[in-house]
Amino acid sequence: MTIPSASTNWHVSTLTVVGVGLIGGSLAAAVKERGLATRVIGVGRNVSKLAGAVDRGLLDEVTSDLTWAARQSDLIVFCTPVDRVVAGVREAAVACRCGTLITDAGSTKAEICEALETGLPPGVEFIGSHPLAGSEKSGYEYSNPQLFANRVCVLTPHERTSPAGLQKLRSFWTSLEARLIEMPARAHDRAVAETSHFPHVAASVLAATLAPEHQQLAARGFRDTTRIAAGDADLWTSILLDNAEEVGRSLDKFAGILDQYRGALSRRDAVAIKQLWEHAKQIRDQLG
Amino acid sequence: MTIPSASTNWHVSTLTVVGVGLIGGSLAAAVKERGLATRVIGVGRNVSKLAGAVDRGLLDEVTSDLTWAARQSDLIVFCTPVDRVVAGVREAAVACRCGTLITDAGSTKAEICEALETGLPPGVEFIGSHPLAGSEKSGYEYSNPQLFANRVCVLTPHERTSPAGLQKLRSFWTSLEARLIEMPARAHDRAVAETSHFPHVAASVLAATLAPEHQQLAARGFRDTTRIAAGDADLWTSILLDNAEEVGRSLDKFAGILDQYRGALSRRDAVAIKQLWEHAKQIRDQLG
Repeated sequence: MTIPSASTNWHVSTLTVVGVGLIGGSLAAAVKERGLATRVIGVGRNVSKLAGAVDRGLLDEVTSDLTWAARQSDLIVFCTPVDRVVAGVREAAVACRCGTLITDAGSTKAEICEALETGLPPGVEFIGSHPLAGSEKSGYEYSNPQLFANRVCVLTPHERTSPAGLQKLRSFWTSLEARLIEMPARAHDRAVAETSHFPHVAASVLAATLAPEHQQLAARGFRDTTRIAAGDADLWTSILLDNAEEVGRSLDKFAGILDQYRGALSRRDAVAIKQLWEHAKQIRDQLG
Repeated sequence: MTIPSASTNWHVSTLTVVGVGLIGGSLAAAVKERGLATRVIGVGRNVSKLAGAVDRGLLDEVTSDLTWAARQSDLIVFCTPVDRVVAGVREAAVACRCGTLITDAGSTKAEICEALETGLPPGVEFIGSHPLAGSEKSGYEYSNPQLFANRVCVLTPHERTSPAGLQKLRSFWTSLEARLIEMPARAHDRAVAETSHFPHVAASVLAATLAPEHQQLAARGFRDTTRIAAGDADLWTSILLDNAEEVGRSLDKFAGILDQYRGALSRRDAVAIKQLWEHAKQIRDQLG
């Protein structure tokens, strides 16, 4: 894991955002608010649904024609569900001018980045990004131009990534006030399985245990602990599938510690319960 | 589960709060702010530590002498860890005047209430309370006079509870703007195992899975989901021990659904993952 230093601003002539939901909409809003691009195009399957994003000033133009948008872009950011990124990037890349940079905002990186390491036209480059920002809300209606400010954004360059391309990508995210971390795509996937993907599973399982007759007693603790279980089903199915192996590994680690609690509870073992609690509390306290 | 109607205010002459931590301190603050008692005494083992609570206007007097405080109280609220409530109530009750009401704010009710159903001096009554309010913070320094406002407070009267005592207790919590629910102590313990105690275990287990090198990638989702794992170790050990059987039952329910996710992930079964997610999301969405 490396933390690159900030770099000078890169002014984008035309930025295309593919998939204008919460992340894509917030990205467009953040770019517009900071004047980082001359023109922002939004690509979506349902153009009429995106008209509102133009009205709100998030986008200059909307289209369902990815090829048309790609042809005039310096930078394309895919904010679609992760299972649609690879095909979309390939489709866009063949239409791009030489020098166009393509990235994404997907929560998994290994499958996407490995598939796109080779095979793109010369001069067109894909480098993976994952801004650790989001919400259980979905839709550009919830766009927030500050969504990336002070949030970590992981970049996953590989051996063949060009220094110039990487520098441009760093500049772009730094302009949105993200804090950059760089690591290999596989290391990223293992880390976020632990810090995000499996925790979504845990929250989901916990929500599922709540009997309807106990709803009234579900106070702030339960609500906070299960908040992320309200995320979009398609989005999360796609992320969990894409990172299934690493999520399974985190699940097993969790199940092992859960078993320790089970044993301590069934033995009524105060010392063991307290040790388990204190160990976890220490880790949690470090997060502040 | 019944929801009693609001009742007229009960002005307490002398209120004693035993255990002046976050809950006890907030209770005192709430009573002071609303002028619900003429005098508020705080009982703690370390009187010098409580001097600050007098300075802040939460308490009128502090003492380590429970018997002395009990002798002049109309209402005594035990806000100690649950494993100290029964002995404390018995000690106080023998000093109380006829008509004194004793309650608590403990997160478990069956052991406490069953132990105190009988054996108190005539005219002195204990009725269990559990305000569903708290924080991962501890200490009266974090007192909040609004802590109980709009929060559920569960009362657990039993067959021998006097209507007059119950009416006074309802009046007291209603004056603090709590929303009252009444149910038997055992039903309460089963419900809160599911809505609070086991979720604390789940949050704790999740926090324990975080490897130090991944800390930087723990974003808002991880933080929210594990926030309650930062609670006080003694407090939570005592609650989990006291309600171990019901917490174990909730743990098993959780483990069963976790296994379904494990199976769906290992089969890369998108349909099953999505079904599990949507079912849980529906339950979570109902909480608003």
